[in-house]
Amino acid sequence: MDQDTLLLTVAVLGGTGKEGKGLAYRWAKAGYQVLIGSRTPEKAITAAGEIIELLEGLGSVVGMSNQEAAQHANIAVLSVPYAAHRATLESVKDSLQGKLLIDVTVPLVPPKVSKVQMPPAGSAAQEAKEIVGDGVEVVAAFQTVSYELLLGEAAVACDVLVTGTSKNARKEALKLVEAAGLVGWDAGPIENSVVVEGLTSVLININKQYGSTHAGIRITSVDRPA
Amino acid sequence: MDQDTLLLTVAVLGGTGKEGKGLAYRWAKAGYQVLIGSRTPEKAITAAGEIIELLEGLGSVVGMSNQEAAQHANIAVLSVPYAAHRATLESVKDSLQGKLLIDVTVPLVPPKVSKVQMPPAGSAAQEAKEIVGDGVEVVAAFQTVSYELLLGEAAVACDVLVTGTSKNARKEALKLVEAAGLVGWDAGPIENSVVVEGLTSVLININKQYGSTHAGIRITSVDRPA
Repeated sequence: MDQDTLLLTVAVLGGTGKEGKGLAYRWAKAGYQVLIGSRTPEKAITAAGEIIELLEGLGSVVGMSNQEAAQHANIAVLSVPYAAHRATLESVKDSLQGKLLIDVTVPLVPPKVSKVQMPPAGSAAQEAKEIVGDGVEVVAAFQTVSYELLLGEAAVACDVLVTGTSKNARKEALKLVEAAGLVGWDAGPIENSVVVEGLTSVLININKQYGSTHAGIRITSVDRPA
Repeated sequence: MDQDTLLLTVAVLGGTGKEGKGLAYRWAKAGYQVLIGSRTPEKAITAAGEIIELLEGLGSVVGMSNQEAAQHANIAVLSVPYAAHRATLESVKDSLQGKLLIDVTVPLVPPKVSKVQMPPAGSAAQEAKEIVGDGVEVVAAFQTVSYELLLGEAAVACDVLVTGTSKNARKEALKLVEAAGLVGWDAGPIENSVVVEGLTSVLININKQYGSTHAGIRITSVDRPA
Protein backbone atom coordinates (compact mmCIF):
# COMPACT_ATOMS: atom_id res chain seq x y z
CA MET A 1 0.00 0.00 0.00
CA ASP A 2 1.74 3.21 -1.10
CA GLN A 3 0.92 6.77 -0.11
CA ASP A 4 -1.39 7.27 -3.10
CA THR A 5 -3.58 4.45 -1.92
CA LEU A 6 -3.80 5.72 1.65
CA LEU A 7 -5.00 9.11 0.50
CA LEU A 8 -7.61 7.95 -1.98
CA THR A 9 -11.25 7.13 -1.55
CA VAL A 10 -12.92 5.63 -4.61
CA ALA A 11 -16.69 5.73 -5.07
CA VAL A 12 -18.19 3.09 -7.32
CA LEU A 13 -21.52 4.59 -8.43
CA GLY A 14 -23.82 1.77 -9.47
CA GLY A 15 -21.50 -0.49 -7.48
CA THR A 16 -24.23 -3.05 -6.84
CA GLY A 17 -24.01 -4.24 -10.46
CA LYS A 18 -21.71 -7.07 -11.46
CA GLU A 19 -18.85 -5.09 -12.98
CA GLY A 20 -18.96 -2.38 -10.30
CA LYS A 21 -18.78 -5.02 -7.58
CA GLY A 22 -15.81 -6.69 -9.26
CA LEU A 23 -13.88 -3.43 -9.46
CA ALA A 24 -14.79 -2.51 -5.86
CA TYR A 25 -13.49 -5.88 -4.69
CA ARG A 26 -10.19 -5.48 -6.50
CA TRP A 27 -9.60 -1.94 -5.21
CA ALA A 28 -10.55 -2.71 -1.62
CA LYS A 29 -8.15 -5.64 -1.77
CA ALA A 30 -5.42 -3.26 -2.98
CA GLY A 31 -5.98 -1.05 0.06
CA TYR A 32 -8.23 1.70 -1.27
CA GLN A 33 -11.13 3.03 0.77
CA VAL A 34 -14.11 2.03 -1.34
CA LEU A 35 -17.59 3.53 -1.21
CA ILE A 36 -20.36 1.63 -2.96
CA GLY A 37 -23.06 3.94 -4.28
CA SER A 38 -26.57 3.04 -5.38
CA ARG A 39 -29.88 4.76 -6.00
CA THR A 40 -31.10 2.49 -3.21
CA PRO A 41 -28.69 2.80 -0.22
CA GLU A 42 -29.89 -0.51 1.29
CA LYS A 43 -28.69 -2.36 -1.81
CA ALA A 44 -25.34 -0.60 -1.58
CA ILE A 45 -24.99 -1.66 2.05
CA THR A 46 -25.78 -5.28 1.13
CA ALA A 47 -23.24 -5.21 -1.75
CA ALA A 48 -20.58 -3.73 0.55
CA GLY A 49 -21.21 -6.56 3.01
CA GLU A 50 -20.80 -9.16 0.27
CA ILE A 51 -17.48 -7.68 -0.79
CA ILE A 52 -16.21 -7.49 2.81
CA GLU A 53 -17.08 -11.16 3.11
CA LEU A 54 -15.13 -12.03 -0.05
CA LEU A 55 -12.23 -10.07 1.44
CA GLU A 56 -12.59 -12.00 4.71
CA GLY A 57 -12.96 -8.70 6.52
CA LEU A 58 -9.66 -7.29 5.28
CA GLY A 59 -10.75 -4.13 3.48
CA SER A 60 -12.73 -0.93 3.79
CA VAL A 61 -15.99 -1.01 1.83
CA VAL A 62 -19.04 1.03 2.81
CA GLY A 63 -22.44 1.28 1.12
CA MET A 64 -24.47 4.50 0.76
CA SER A 65 -26.42 6.58 -1.77
CA ASN A 66 -24.75 7.59 -5.03
CA GLN A 67 -24.77 11.24 -3.91
CA GLU A 68 -23.09 10.51 -0.58
CA ALA A 69 -20.51 8.29 -2.23
CA ALA A 70 -19.68 10.96 -4.83
CA GLN A 71 -19.46 13.58 -2.07
CA HIS A 72 -16.97 11.66 0.06
CA ALA A 73 -14.72 10.28 -2.69
CA ASN A 74 -11.69 11.66 -4.48
CA ILE A 75 -12.39 9.58 -7.57
CA ALA A 76 -15.81 8.43 -8.77
CA VAL A 77 -16.29 5.42 -11.04
CA LEU A 78 -19.58 5.24 -12.92
CA SER A 79 -20.77 1.70 -13.57
CA VAL A 80 -24.46 1.79 -14.52
CA PRO A 81 -26.50 0.44 -17.43
CA TYR A 82 -26.52 3.01 -20.22
CA ALA A 83 -30.25 3.65 -19.62
CA ALA A 84 -29.36 5.13 -16.20
CA HIS A 85 -26.26 7.04 -17.39
CA ARG A 86 -27.65 10.55 -17.77
CA ALA A 87 -29.93 10.50 -14.71
CA THR A 88 -27.16 9.20 -12.43
CA LEU A 89 -24.72 11.84 -13.66
CA GLU A 90 -27.28 14.64 -13.21
CA SER A 91 -27.84 13.45 -9.63
CA VAL A 92 -24.13 13.57 -8.66
CA LYS A 93 -22.60 16.26 -10.85
CA ASP A 94 -22.42 18.89 -8.11
CA SER A 95 -20.55 16.50 -5.83
CA LEU A 96 -18.10 15.61 -8.61
CA GLN A 97 -16.74 19.10 -9.22
CA GLY A 98 -12.95 19.20 -8.97
CA LYS A 99 -12.74 15.40 -9.02
CA LEU A 100 -11.96 12.65 -11.50
CA LEU A 101 -14.80 10.65 -13.04
CA ILE A 102 -14.02 7.26 -14.59
CA ASP A 103 -16.85 6.19 -16.87
CA VAL A 104 -17.17 2.42 -17.33
CA THR A 105 -20.49 2.65 -19.16
CA VAL A 106 -20.93 0.98 -22.53
CA PRO A 107 -23.68 2.66 -24.57
CA LEU A 108 -25.28 -0.55 -25.79
CA VAL A 109 -28.68 -0.19 -27.45
CA PRO A 110 -30.65 -3.44 -27.00
CA PRO A 111 -31.53 -5.62 -28.76
CA LYS A 112 -28.66 -4.99 -31.23
CA VAL A 113 -25.86 -5.04 -28.68
CA SER A 114 -23.36 -6.38 -31.19
CA LYS A 115 -23.70 -3.23 -33.32
CA VAL A 116 -21.83 -0.06 -32.31
CA GLN A 117 -24.44 2.66 -31.70
CA MET A 118 -22.94 5.72 -30.05
CA PRO A 119 -24.90 8.62 -28.56
CA PRO A 120 -24.84 12.01 -30.35
CA ALA A 121 -21.95 13.22 -28.14
CA GLY A 122 -19.75 10.55 -29.78
CA SER A 123 -19.48 8.16 -26.82
CA ALA A 124 -20.83 7.69 -23.30
CA ALA A 125 -17.70 9.32 -21.85
CA GLN A 126 -18.09 12.41 -24.04
CA GLU A 127 -21.75 12.58 -23.05
CA ALA A 128 -20.69 12.38 -19.40
CA LYS A 129 -18.28 15.25 -19.95
CA GLU A 130 -21.09 17.35 -21.43
CA ILE A 131 -23.23 16.67 -18.36
CA VAL A 132 -20.65 17.20 -15.59
CA GLY A 133 -19.00 20.21 -17.23
CA ASP A 134 -15.53 21.75 -17.21
CA GLY A 135 -14.89 21.24 -13.50
CA VAL A 136 -14.59 17.46 -13.82
CA GLU A 137 -11.97 15.42 -15.64
CA VAL A 138 -13.51 12.42 -17.38
CA VAL A 139 -11.85 9.14 -18.34
CA ALA A 140 -13.26 6.07 -20.14
CA ALA A 141 -11.90 2.69 -19.03
CA PHE A 142 -12.64 -0.94 -18.05
CA GLN A 143 -15.42 -1.50 -20.64
CA THR A 144 -13.93 -4.67 -22.08
CA VAL A 145 -13.10 -6.48 -18.85
CA SER A 146 -15.31 -9.39 -17.90
CA TYR A 147 -16.76 -8.88 -14.40
CA GLU A 148 -16.55 -12.63 -13.71
CA LEU A 149 -12.80 -12.44 -14.01
CA LEU A 150 -12.60 -9.47 -11.64
CA LEU A 151 -14.16 -11.43 -8.80
CA GLY A 152 -11.69 -14.28 -9.30
CA GLU A 153 -8.00 -14.46 -8.53
CA ALA A 154 -6.69 -15.60 -11.90
CA ALA A 155 -4.75 -13.24 -14.16
CA VAL A 156 -7.09 -11.39 -16.52
CA ALA A 157 -6.04 -11.73 -20.17
CA CYS A 158 -7.56 -8.44 -21.20
CA ASP A 159 -5.81 -5.09 -21.37
CA VAL A 160 -7.58 -1.86 -20.45
CA LEU A 161 -7.54 1.09 -22.84
CA VAL A 162 -7.78 4.45 -21.07
CA THR A 163 -8.94 7.60 -22.84
CA GLY A 164 -9.62 10.90 -21.15
CA THR A 165 -9.75 14.67 -21.02
CA SER A 166 -6.12 15.12 -19.98
CA LYS A 167 -2.92 13.16 -19.77
CA ASN A 168 -2.91 13.59 -16.00
CA ALA A 169 -6.45 12.23 -15.68
CA ARG A 170 -5.44 9.19 -17.76
CA LYS A 171 -2.39 8.72 -15.56
CA GLU A 172 -4.50 8.73 -12.38
CA ALA A 173 -6.90 6.22 -13.94
CA LEU A 174 -4.00 4.00 -14.99
CA LYS A 175 -3.01 3.72 -11.31
CA LEU A 176 -6.45 2.26 -10.58
CA VAL A 177 -6.10 -0.12 -13.53
CA GLU A 178 -2.85 -1.38 -12.07
CA ALA A 179 -4.32 -1.59 -8.57
CA ALA A 180 -7.07 -3.83 -10.01
CA GLY A 181 -4.35 -6.20 -11.24
CA LEU A 182 -4.77 -5.27 -14.90
CA VAL A 183 -2.52 -3.87 -17.61
CA GLY A 184 -3.65 -0.47 -18.89
CA TRP A 185 -2.61 1.75 -21.78
CA ASP A 186 -2.96 5.48 -22.33
CA ALA A 187 -5.09 5.42 -25.48
CA GLY A 188 -5.32 9.18 -25.96
CA PRO A 189 -7.92 11.93 -25.85
CA ILE A 190 -11.57 11.58 -24.84
CA GLU A 191 -12.53 11.58 -28.55
CA ASN A 192 -10.97 8.10 -28.76
CA SER A 193 -13.54 6.74 -26.30
CA VAL A 194 -15.66 5.56 -29.25
CA VAL A 195 -13.02 2.89 -29.86
CA VAL A 196 -12.76 1.84 -26.23
CA GLU A 197 -16.53 1.66 -25.74
CA GLY A 198 -17.25 0.28 -29.22
CA LEU A 199 -14.82 -2.59 -28.72
CA THR A 200 -17.41 -4.10 -26.39
CA SER A 201 -19.82 -4.65 -29.29
CA VAL A 202 -16.98 -6.13 -31.35
CA LEU A 203 -16.13 -8.53 -28.53
CA ILE A 204 -19.81 -9.47 -28.12
CA ASN A 205 -19.75 -10.39 -31.81
CA ILE A 206 -16.63 -12.45 -31.38
CA ASN A 207 -18.03 -14.22 -28.31
CA LYS A 208 -21.17 -15.11 -30.24
CA GLN A 209 -19.43 -16.31 -33.39
CA TYR A 210 -16.45 -18.10 -31.91
CA GLY A 211 -18.20 -19.70 -28.94
CA SER A 212 -16.48 -17.83 -26.15
CA THR A 213 -17.82 -15.90 -23.16
CA HIS A 214 -15.22 -13.33 -22.30
CA ALA A 215 -13.10 -12.43 -25.32
CA GLY A 216 -10.70 -9.59 -24.61
CA ILE A 217 -7.91 -7.69 -26.30
CA ARG A 218 -4.23 -7.36 -25.66
CA ILE A 219 -1.82 -4.76 -27.03
CA THR A 220 1.11 -6.43 -28.82
CA SER A 221 4.58 -5.46 -30.05
CA VAL A 222 5.16 -2.97 -27.23
CA ASP A 223 7.01 -3.46 -23.95
CA ARG A 224 4.22 -4.02 -21.43
CA PRO A 225 4.01 -1.45 -18.61
CA ALA A 226 5.53 -2.66 -15.34
CA MET B 1 -3.31 -23.29 -53.59
CA ASP B 2 -6.96 -24.26 -53.37
CA GLN B 3 -9.69 -23.70 -55.89
CA ASP B 4 -10.75 -20.39 -54.35
CA THR B 5 -7.31 -18.99 -54.96
CA LEU B 6 -7.22 -20.12 -58.57
CA LEU B 7 -10.48 -18.42 -59.33
CA LEU B 8 -9.76 -15.09 -57.69
CA THR B 9 -8.11 -11.98 -58.98
CA VAL B 10 -7.47 -9.30 -56.40
CA ALA B 11 -6.98 -5.66 -57.37
CA VAL B 12 -5.05 -3.51 -54.92
CA LEU B 13 -6.13 0.05 -55.73
CA GLY B 14 -3.47 2.44 -54.54
CA GLY B 15 -1.16 -0.56 -54.52
CA THR B 16 1.95 1.55 -55.00
CA GLY B 17 1.75 2.73 -51.38
CA LYS B 18 3.52 0.92 -48.60
CA GLU B 19 0.62 -1.02 -47.10
CA GLY B 20 -0.91 -1.87 -50.49
CA LYS B 21 2.41 -3.22 -51.66
CA GLY B 22 2.79 -5.37 -48.56
CA LEU B 23 -0.66 -6.90 -49.02
CA ALA B 24 -0.08 -7.47 -52.76
CA TYR B 25 3.16 -9.26 -51.94
CA ARG B 26 1.50 -11.55 -49.42
CA TRP B 27 -1.40 -12.45 -51.71
CA ALA B 28 0.74 -13.05 -54.79
CA LYS B 29 2.91 -15.30 -52.64
CA ALA B 30 -0.23 -17.21 -51.61
CA GLY B 31 -1.10 -17.81 -55.26
CA TYR B 32 -3.64 -15.11 -56.01
CA GLN B 33 -3.60 -13.21 -59.28
CA VAL B 34 -2.81 -9.66 -58.14
CA LEU B 35 -3.45 -6.46 -60.08
CA ILE B 36 -1.76 -3.31 -58.78
CA GLY B 37 -3.80 -0.21 -59.54
CA SER B 38 -2.67 3.40 -59.47
CA ARG B 39 -3.82 6.77 -60.78
CA THR B 40 -0.52 6.66 -62.66
CA PRO B 41 -0.23 3.30 -64.49
CA GLU B 42 3.57 3.64 -64.88
CA LYS B 43 3.94 3.69 -61.09
CA ALA B 44 1.73 0.60 -60.81
CA ILE B 45 3.92 -1.22 -63.36
CA THR B 46 7.06 -0.28 -61.41
CA ALA B 47 5.50 -1.46 -58.12
CA ALA B 48 4.41 -4.75 -59.72
CA GLY B 49 7.99 -5.28 -60.92
CA GLU B 50 9.34 -4.67 -57.41
CA ILE B 51 6.96 -7.23 -55.93
CA ILE B 52 7.79 -9.81 -58.62
CA GLU B 53 11.44 -9.30 -57.73
CA LEU B 54 10.74 -9.87 -54.01
CA LEU B 55 8.90 -13.04 -55.03
CA GLU B 56 11.88 -14.10 -57.16
CA GLY B 57 9.55 -14.34 -60.14
CA LEU B 58 7.17 -16.79 -58.49
CA GLY B 59 3.88 -14.92 -58.61
CA SER B 60 1.42 -13.11 -60.83
CA VAL B 61 1.46 -9.34 -60.30
CA VAL B 62 0.55 -6.84 -63.01
CA GLY B 63 0.39 -3.04 -62.84
CA MET B 64 -2.28 -0.90 -64.54
CA SER B 65 -4.67 2.00 -63.89
CA ASN B 66 -7.08 1.81 -60.94
CA GLN B 67 -10.02 1.54 -63.36
CA GLU B 68 -8.53 -1.34 -65.32
CA ALA B 69 -7.57 -3.15 -62.13
CA ALA B 70 -11.09 -2.77 -60.70
CA GLN B 71 -12.57 -3.94 -63.99
CA HIS B 72 -10.56 -7.16 -64.17
CA ALA B 73 -10.71 -8.18 -60.50
CA ASN B 74 -13.20 -10.22 -58.47
CA ILE B 75 -12.24 -8.42 -55.27
CA ALA B 76 -10.91 -4.87 -54.99
CA VAL B 77 -8.86 -3.66 -52.04
CA LEU B 78 -8.69 0.10 -51.52
CA SER B 79 -5.44 1.29 -49.97
CA VAL B 80 -5.13 5.02 -50.52
CA PRO B 81 -4.49 8.00 -48.21
CA TYR B 82 -7.81 9.25 -46.88
CA ALA B 83 -7.47 12.47 -48.93
CA ALA B 84 -7.81 10.35 -52.12
CA HIS B 85 -10.57 8.07 -50.77
CA ARG B 86 -13.64 9.66 -52.34
CA ALA B 87 -12.08 10.53 -55.70
CA THR B 88 -10.66 7.03 -56.15
CA LEU B 89 -13.98 5.40 -55.32
CA GLU B 90 -15.87 7.70 -57.70
CA SER B 91 -13.44 6.73 -60.46
CA VAL B 92 -13.94 2.96 -60.02
CA LYS B 93 -17.47 2.56 -58.71
CA ASP B 94 -18.96 1.43 -62.02
CA SER B 95 -16.35 -1.31 -62.33
CA LEU B 96 -16.98 -2.50 -58.78
CA GLN B 97 -20.68 -3.33 -59.17
CA GLY B 98 -21.42 -6.91 -58.10
CA LYS B 99 -17.99 -7.27 -56.48
CA LEU B 100 -16.49 -7.12 -53.02
CA LEU B 101 -14.64 -4.00 -51.89
CA ILE B 102 -12.22 -4.24 -48.97
CA ASP B 103 -11.47 -0.79 -47.59
CA VAL B 104 -8.12 -0.50 -45.83
CA THR B 105 -8.31 3.29 -45.54
CA VAL B 106 -7.87 4.97 -42.17
CA PRO B 107 -9.58 8.36 -42.06
CA LEU B 108 -6.73 10.17 -40.30
CA VAL B 109 -6.98 13.96 -40.22
CA PRO B 110 -3.44 15.44 -40.01
CA PRO B 111 -1.89 16.85 -37.94
CA LYS B 112 -3.91 15.23 -35.09
CA VAL B 113 -3.53 11.65 -36.27
CA SER B 114 -3.65 10.30 -32.72
CA LYS B 115 -7.21 11.61 -32.29
CA VAL B 116 -10.13 9.64 -33.76
CA GLN B 117 -11.91 11.91 -36.26
CA MET B 118 -14.43 9.99 -38.37
CA PRO B 119 -16.19 11.35 -41.47
CA PRO B 120 -19.93 12.16 -41.27
CA ALA B 121 -20.82 8.70 -42.62
CA GLY B 122 -19.39 7.20 -39.39
CA SER B 123 -16.22 5.66 -40.86
CA ALA B 124 -14.31 5.49 -44.13
CA ALA B 125 -15.91 2.13 -44.93
CA GLN B 126 -19.43 3.49 -44.43
CA GLU B 127 -18.51 6.46 -46.61
CA ALA B 128 -17.28 4.01 -49.26
CA LYS B 129 -20.57 2.15 -49.08
CA GLU B 130 -22.45 5.42 -49.64
CA ILE B 131 -20.35 6.14 -52.73
CA VAL B 132 -20.37 2.70 -54.38
CA GLY B 133 -24.03 1.98 -53.61
CA ASP B 134 -26.11 -1.11 -53.02
CA GLY B 135 -24.48 -3.22 -55.76
CA VAL B 136 -21.19 -3.55 -53.88
CA GLU B 137 -20.48 -5.34 -50.60
CA VAL B 138 -18.02 -3.37 -48.47
CA VAL B 139 -15.68 -4.64 -45.78
CA ALA B 140 -13.21 -2.79 -43.52
CA ALA B 141 -9.99 -4.64 -42.64
CA PHE B 142 -6.18 -4.50 -42.28
CA GLN B 143 -6.02 -0.94 -40.84
CA THR B 144 -3.90 -1.86 -37.85
CA VAL B 145 -1.29 -4.01 -39.55
CA SER B 146 2.15 -2.51 -39.96
CA TYR B 147 3.19 -2.55 -43.64
CA GLU B 148 6.82 -3.16 -42.69
CA LEU B 149 5.80 -6.48 -41.18
CA LEU B 150 3.86 -7.49 -44.30
CA LEU B 151 6.96 -7.27 -46.49
CA GLY B 152 8.91 -9.46 -44.06
CA GLU B 153 8.62 -13.16 -43.34
CA ALA B 154 8.24 -13.04 -39.57
CA ALA B 155 4.91 -13.81 -37.91
CA VAL B 156 2.84 -10.66 -37.48
CA ALA B 157 1.67 -10.19 -33.89
CA CYS B 158 -1.42 -8.22 -34.86
CA ASP B 159 -4.88 -9.63 -35.43
CA VAL B 160 -7.17 -8.23 -38.12
CA LEU B 161 -10.73 -7.18 -37.25
CA VAL B 162 -13.13 -7.51 -40.17
CA THR B 163 -16.41 -5.59 -40.33
CA GLY B 164 -18.71 -5.48 -43.33
CA THR B 165 -22.10 -5.25 -44.98
CA SER B 166 -22.86 -8.99 -44.75
CA LYS B 167 -21.62 -12.08 -43.04
CA ASN B 168 -20.71 -13.58 -46.40
CA ALA B 169 -18.64 -10.54 -47.37
CA ARG B 170 -16.78 -10.76 -44.06
CA LYS B 171 -16.19 -14.45 -44.66
CA GLU B 172 -14.68 -13.78 -48.10
CA ALA B 173 -12.45 -11.08 -46.62
CA LEU B 174 -11.35 -13.41 -43.82
CA LYS B 175 -10.00 -15.79 -46.49
CA LEU B 176 -7.74 -13.00 -47.73
CA VAL B 177 -6.64 -12.25 -44.16
CA GLU B 178 -5.62 -15.86 -43.75
CA ALA B 179 -3.93 -15.91 -47.16
CA ALA B 180 -1.84 -12.94 -46.00
CA GLY B 181 -0.63 -15.04 -43.07
CA LEU B 182 -2.66 -13.16 -40.48
CA VAL B 183 -5.34 -14.08 -37.96
CA GLY B 184 -8.68 -12.38 -38.61
CA TRP B 185 -11.93 -12.10 -36.68
CA ASP B 186 -15.47 -11.38 -37.83
CA ALA B 187 -16.10 -8.17 -35.89
CA GLY B 188 -19.66 -7.60 -37.05
CA PRO B 189 -21.63 -5.14 -39.15
CA ILE B 190 -20.23 -2.20 -41.13
CA GLU B 191 -21.33 0.14 -38.32
CA ASN B 192 -18.53 -1.36 -36.22
CA SER B 193 -15.92 -0.04 -38.66
CA VAL B 194 -15.44 3.01 -36.43
CA VAL B 195 -13.73 0.71 -33.93
CA VAL B 196 -11.55 -1.01 -36.51
CA GLU B 197 -10.47 2.23 -38.17
CA GLY B 198 -10.29 4.21 -34.92
CA LEU B 199 -7.94 1.66 -33.35
CA THR B 200 -5.24 3.04 -35.64
CA SER B 201 -5.28 6.37 -33.78
CA VAL B 202 -5.22 4.52 -30.46
CA LEU B 203 -2.18 2.51 -31.60
CA ILE B 204 -0.46 5.68 -32.86
CA ASN B 205 -0.93 7.06 -29.34
CA ILE B 206 0.51 3.94 -27.79
CA ASN B 207 3.47 3.92 -30.18
CA LYS B 208 4.24 7.53 -29.28
CA GLN B 209 3.90 7.13 -25.52
CA TYR B 210 5.47 3.72 -25.02
CA GLY B 211 8.33 4.08 -27.51
CA SER B 212 7.23 1.47 -30.03
CA THR B 213 6.77 1.60 -33.79
CA HIS B 214 4.20 -1.01 -34.64
CA ALA B 215 1.90 -1.70 -31.70
CA GLY B 216 -0.92 -4.06 -32.60
CA ILE B 217 -3.80 -5.86 -30.95
CA ARG B 218 -4.62 -9.47 -30.34
CA ILE B 219 -7.94 -11.02 -29.36
CA THR B 220 -7.61 -13.05 -26.16
CA SER B 221 -9.60 -15.72 -24.28
CA VAL B 222 -11.02 -17.26 -27.47
CA ASP B 223 -9.77 -20.27 -29.40
CA ARG B 224 -7.85 -18.73 -32.29
CA PRO B 225 -9.19 -19.53 -35.79
CA ALA B 226 -7.22 -22.29 -37.54
